[in-house]
Amino acid sequence: MMPTSFSCQNLTVVGLGLMGGSMALALRDHAESITGVDPDPVTRDYAVQQGIVDQATDDLNTGVNDADVVILAAPVRAIADMLRQRIGSYLRSNTFLIDLGSTKQDICQLMGHLPIGVQAVGGHPMTGKEYSGVTASDKDLYRGRPFVLCPTRWTTPAARLRALSLIETLEAVPYEMEAERHDRVVAAISHLPYLLSSALVAAVAREGQGDDAVWQLAAGGFRDMSRLAGSDVQMMGDILSTNTQAVATMLAMFRMQLAQLEAMLISHDDQQLADSLRPIREARLHWVDTYQSGVNGGRSK
Amino acid sequence: MMPTSFSCQNLTVVGLGLMGGSMALALRDHAESITGVDPDPVTRDYAVQQGIVDQATDDLNTGVNDADVVILAAPVRAIADMLRQRIGSYLRSNTFLIDLGSTKQDICQLMGHLPIGVQAVGGHPMTGKEYSGVTASDKDLYRGRPFVLCPTRWTTPAARLRALSLIETLEAVPYEMEAERHDRVVAAISHLPYLLSSALVAAVAREGQGDDAVWQLAAGGFRDMSRLAGSDVQMMGDILSTNTQAVATMLAMFRMQLAQLEAMLISHDDQQLADSLRPIREARLHWVDTYQSGVNGGRSK
Repeated sequence: MMPTSFSCQNLTVVGLGLMGGSMALALRDHAESITGVDPDPVTRDYAVQQGIVDQATDDLNTGVNDADVVILAAPVRAIADMLRQRIGSYLRSNTFLIDLGSTKQDICQLMGHLPIGVQAVGGHPMTGKEYSGVTASDKDLYRGRPFVLCPTRWTTPAARLRALSLIETLEAVPYEMEAERHDRVVAAISHLPYLLSSALVAAVAREGQGDDAVWQLAAGGFRDMSRLAGSDVQMMGDILSTNTQAVATMLAMFRMQLAQLEAMLISHDDQQLADSLRPIREARLHWVDTYQSGVNGGRSK
Repeated sequence: MMPTSFSCQNLTVVGLGLMGGSMALALRDHAESITGVDPDPVTRDYAVQQGIVDQATDDLNTGVNDADVVILAAPVRAIADMLRQRIGSYLRSNTFLIDLGSTKQDICQLMGHLPIGVQAVGGHPMTGKEYSGVTASDKDLYRGRPFVLCPTRWTTPAARLRALSLIETLEAVPYEMEAERHDRVVAAISHLPYLLSSALVAAVAREGQGDDAVWQLAAGGFRDMSRLAGSDVQMMGDILSTNTQAVATMLAMFRMQLAQLEAMLISHDDQQLADSLRPIREARLHWVDTYQSGVNGGRSK
């Protein structure tokens, strides 16, 4: 069954950062009225002045109680807090609720405790965004990007179709999976890499304390490997702390792989080292060729 | 004392890959004749036809015995083999010899065993190259890039000035340091990152065996962190195996940093985790601002 085109009367976007602002822009013509909820007055003023939303408030209750669609675009921990504390009682029955948080197990579980009648779906659009803030809002942010949907206790078939039609409107690519699976996947491809990048920068910084040439000579390889360490600390801390178990599992797997390479290296088993590195290289090239060929910054970078 | 402009009569470049080919192009107007030495006939033909070198041979003896300047642009292990086995006896007295290998301790030590009269300097131009092969040769490859010089037993003051004038001609940026220090620095900023990238791809590949969503959803962060794992295995294996001790030391430092972050994570000490990640992030941003601001792909990437 194809999802029908997404439309609603009163859309409320909670959290007017890059994700929320871009969502409001992308859905401009699909909602009769868009309300933004954000604690920051400068952000609210900007969003209203730029026509990203029709009106804005810092009060969650006021913001959502007329909405038939609510998109939670706040940081992971703030979403969890809203679900725990207040938002359930403010929502009208039959409201369609989706979040954009980067981890899904906690949030989807909390969504299951919302009052009956709320149609709740967990969402995670993977935009690979480098910028942040409402001023970076871009109606095409989600186009062509994966958008993961995770079912909750309240994901009715109708709610699921609503979510799919939302994703279609954004021209994003839907991936449906259980929250647990999502969190394991992002632990591998996103949270582990962030920790490795940070630990690398920490180790290099130690070395750099005694020898400034470390910083002077660092170039492309280090630049790539250290980029994630420059991510927003609060955001990444939130994400990691809501995905501890999957991250710890991936860390253990990583340590094992690294220990194997190190053992070959220090025993000067060059042939075995090369034989181990070769399929790793092929896995990387295969991934680029298969999944990244159309993406800017693919194989050639 | 300023180095004088670089010039020579018979320049021989041993190894016509990207590094050697680019070197020949950059020194085109500074040598009366350029000879290339390479085992591959297709490479030799190309280099001669394109005017990268004046003549080419696969015989090291023939290639270097008329030269007053010899540049060893082969892979690290091949350079070490040449120094160990044959090249010393083929060189004329007073020949200026420099290599472009990625590790320096082994090579500089071997250079110290060359016959008296050879003026030998260890070199490592850090070009952050993404391509390889003679067809990618670029006379501007070295421009603006760091070029490390490491003294050997035979680095006379005149040899040092000759090397500095070579670097000036290339418009590269000279860094002079002991070979041991060089190898520690590149272990930190290049060899450790490569091993981490490879171990990450190995761990993700394990996870991806059971769940293809891992590959499908991997995006920008994984792309950055996996890029080095796509490096040439033979080249990286050579480099690692000639820098085992420094790499092992850096691996130990990295493990310690990662273990600290992990301990905070699994003990849910979110505040301490954020407090640890913040200076790491600042170190990364500071490096970008200080050393990478003019470099393509700096902060914004």
